[in-house]
Amino acid sequence: MKDSHAKILDCTIRDGGLVNNWDFSVEFVRDLYASLNAAGVDYMEIGYKNSPKLLKGADAGPWRFLDESFLRDVIPQKGNTKLSALVDIGRVDENDILPRSESLLDMIRVACYIKDVDKALDLVYKFHGYGYETTLNIMALSHVMENDLLDAFVEIAKSPVDVVYVVDSYGSLDHRDIEYLVTKFQRHLPGKQLGIHAHNNMQLAFSNTIAAAERGVQFLDASVFGMGRAAGNCNTELLVSYLKNPKYELRPILEVIERRMIPLREKVEWGYIVPYMLTGMLNEHPRVAMALRASEDKDKYAEFYDRLTSPETVPSARGD
Amino acid sequence: MKDSHAKILDCTIRDGGLVNNWDFSVEFVRDLYASLNAAGVDYMEIGYKNSPKLLKGADAGPWRFLDESFLRDVIPQKGNTKLSALVDIGRVDENDILPRSESLLDMIRVACYIKDVDKALDLVYKFHGYGYETTLNIMALSHVMENDLLDAFVEIAKSPVDVVYVVDSYGSLDHRDIEYLVTKFQRHLPGKQLGIHAHNNMQLAFSNTIAAAERGVQFLDASVFGMGRAAGNCNTELLVSYLKNPKYELRPILEVIERRMIPLREKVEWGYIVPYMLTGMLNEHPRVAMALRASEDKDKYAEFYDRLTSPETVPSARGD
Repeated sequence: MKDSHAKILDCTIRDGGLVNNWDFSVEFVRDLYASLNAAGVDYMEIGYKNSPKLLKGADAGPWRFLDESFLRDVIPQKGNTKLSALVDIGRVDENDILPRSESLLDMIRVACYIKDVDKALDLVYKFHGYGYETTLNIMALSHVMENDLLDAFVEIAKSPVDVVYVVDSYGSLDHRDIEYLVTKFQRHLPGKQLGIHAHNNMQLAFSNTIAAAERGVQFLDASVFGMGRAAGNCNTELLVSYLKNPKYELRPILEVIERRMIPLREKVEWGYIVPYMLTGMLNEHPRVAMALRASEDKDKYAEFYDRLTSPETVPSARGD
Repeated sequence: MKDSHAKILDCTIRDGGLVNNWDFSVEFVRDLYASLNAAGVDYMEIGYKNSPKLLKGADAGPWRFLDESFLRDVIPQKGNTKLSALVDIGRVDENDILPRSESLLDMIRVACYIKDVDKALDLVYKFHGYGYETTLNIMALSHVMENDLLDAFVEIAKSPVDVVYVVDSYGSLDHRDIEYLVTKFQRHLPGKQLGIHAHNNMQLAFSNTIAAAERGVQFLDASVFGMGRAAGNCNTELLVSYLKNPKYELRPILEVIERRMIPLREKVEWGYIVPYMLTGMLNEHPRVAMALRASEDKDKYAEFYDRLTSPETVPSARGD
């Protein structure tokens, strides 16, 4: 595969934090950064840059509300791996963001649903003005109407955003969907780089990611051992092994899986688990499956499937 | 996807038996058959039809050496799901095989390495003469030289075999490899149906299987909850959900996962496990990784990787 254009963005801490409420020790994150850097991974998303004033979650670990001076303690010596943070519309206080020249962060990614693209672009303009690389991550693309997406493309094309992401929030897309979306994004956003963020509900996250890379998508999201919400993400170790670019080294990733991810996976769960497969297949948010997994009925798959597919199920019970 | 040509062959008992030495109870197998039948799965491979006289393994469960009268006890009432058994070259006593009219089996599959295709075809001719549907499963295709394969195609094309399988024994192929092989098989074996048997070392078994189905491959091997040697197979529940044919019902598969596979997975392991990922990536037989997983060093991935990739490693230590 011609994949020398591809860059890996590891989002273990940011997306994985949705599994363990960002309860990663400083040593863990420091070790992960050193490992990703040794492996040649291009970016590490080290958390959310949301504001604790705008979002409940005081009990969450510090990676949910990144603070610049804290970050300098964690990463006293930056390597080649760049750092990114994600912000959500309505949860970020713009006054918290320093100019890039004063920050350890290189990239700020803005996540939004399709209805909030304008608000997201407002933030993109600001962060771009501060000197950051920027991305726009339109979530839940599998629930987006074609006309809304085409409207959004017009504004996105005019903006200074560097990268636009295809985000398969529900893990419901297959390679033909990815090809369709990537082709559409390329046609309407010819000046932009593209990214892919896949979830592994149907064991297709890696396969969809390499299908996107083959079509020219540059930014490939992944996480070590797949750690991410619910079914998790495309596995960093698979991408690092698979991409032909000689700068990638698998061994440091294997070491950090051994040291950090195996013990962690014994305490918290993510990955291919039947209720997540079902929400993926049914193109639904995984929150109902996450609730099931936290209950005594966690392995009652057939009953859960009945609930998801019954025409009598009221929307609230389905988590819509 | 136009996939109404596709048939699912569930090989949970046969390939999964490689994980637990075929230690499935009669109730387990009966329950699985009823579930597959209710789900509309086309074939169930209920074991090996090897001879205990020709193969060590007296401690193995009865599914390794299927006996016709035993089989009648297990499946007193056959449904629509057909039954198949696999035989290995040199391990089957042809005198053990009854004519199809006297057997519960509908299909006999012959597995061989490329060097044994002639011997395999001898068996195919016999079993075809007995009235069975037959398949030829050429294992380890990722280690086969092009010229040997082309020679084999000449003999296979002349034989009465119904289905020829693309077998990714090491889980080392991606969708482009599958497309390449399927196109080649189709060109050289125009009168034959094709099958795919994928392993999940790189989380590509399902993705490769649907890529093959899209190219017209008819027989799709799978196992419930992916149970199969080492990284396991394409998951039956994923195929049953994904294929558009309305005859497939997911619910009975979910029930049998709940009842049988979850408790079993707590006792024996298969699936995406780093050492199996490594042998897949490196296009090696998983036996060295299986030995590692049975040892105290089972999670020493980096050391294992060094061993697999060191030029000084002697072949025997690599299990070649």
